[in-house]
Amino acid sequence: MNRMRHVLSALVQNVPGVLAHISGMLASRGYNIDSLAVGETEDPSLSRMTFVVVGDDRVLDQIRKQLEKIVTVVRVVDVSSHDYVERDLMLVKVSAPPGGQRAEIRELTEIFRGSIVDVGPDEITIEISGREQKIQAFIERIRPYGIVELVRTGRIAMIRSHGIVPGSLGAEMGITSDKVCITVPHGAGTKGIGQAE
Amino acid sequence: MNRMRHVLSALVQNVPGVLAHISGMLASRGYNIDSLAVGETEDPSLSRMTFVVVGDDRVLDQIRKQLEKIVTVVRVVDVSSHDYVERDLMLVKVSAPPGGQRAEIRELTEIFRGSIVDVGPDEITIEISGREQKIQAFIERIRPYGIVELVRTGRIAMIRSHGIVPGSLGAEMGITSDKVCITVPHGAGTKGIGQAE
Repeated sequence: MNRMRHVLSALVQNVPGVLAHISGMLASRGYNIDSLAVGETEDPSLSRMTFVVVGDDRVLDQIRKQLEKIVTVVRVVDVSSHDYVERDLMLVKVSAPPGGQRAEIRELTEIFRGSIVDVGPDEITIEISGREQKIQAFIERIRPYGIVELVRTGRIAMIRSHGIVPGSLGAEMGITSDKVCITVPHGAGTKGIGQAE
Repeated sequence: MNRMRHVLSALVQNVPGVLAHISGMLASRGYNIDSLAVGETEDPSLSRMTFVVVGDDRVLDQIRKQLEKIVTVVRVVDVSSHDYVERDLMLVKVSAPPGGQRAEIRELTEIFRGSIVDVGPDEITIEISGREQKIQAFIERIRPYGIVELVRTGRIAMIRSHGIVPGSLGAEMGITSDKVCITVPHGAGTKGIGQAE
């Protein structure tokens, strides 16, 4: 594995200063974060930080070790070393004066399975979620209409449960991901993020 | 306005250390962040940080001033002082051994307009986006089935475009937000986040 994007998921105690501690450590060592999302978990005393870092395996190993030294960090998992699901959420405000272009924007939004969440006199706000490539593709399609404002959450990710998901079962279960992946069980990946490493 | 949740949106230069600088400032002054999302914008040289802080107007004013002192911070807007759209994204892995409960979980997911993004032998992973209350309600409904893992992005928000969105136009435009709000133009809110304050 060479220089690549890694998605790290850190379970941290929900206490003041934990973010400052972690981001300070990363900055002081010169690691750059591509995206970061900090959100609640099923346990109010814990938060989960998902961050995307660029680097080779050595850098990743260093970051992981440094993170594990921080007492408020409960567990760190390199999600991207497993088979995983990743999602990002975007709100984008697009210029749309009344007229023909509104219909085009609406159609594009439907194709990408987004939703229109606000309509103003001259602008439309769209919500869209998906994998990086999907969001990027939508931005490129919508750009010619005029992007007024764009905000993204940063990625979150989860290791897939190991089972084979054939197309028929996928359809039966109403799977609406960008792409249904066939996940084949393998040793390294049978531990979920929620279990001991 | 008393002690309440504020949603701040800061446009920052996409340079190493900016997050450490900002989170360090917030921690050193004892401000606690409820959620944080750092994502790309339409401009690769800029990132947008959306954070939710709890405090009264005085605290909020202090945070804003401190943020504006940081040279890598381009602009700070208190989105929650305007009429705004807010969204959060969640991935939740739920225990679902094959059998009757899968159908129930699928139905619940459809009611909340979520999507099933992965199916394993004993678990289902669901993606859901929406406002805080909607996500919270979904967590409560799904909890009895057994939450294996839960990850959230933290909130992102955008000031609404000022226009009146009657139900009929909303439906015509395919608005699928949790609630269609009628936004009435008012002085303070006519400036978008993308314009000079």
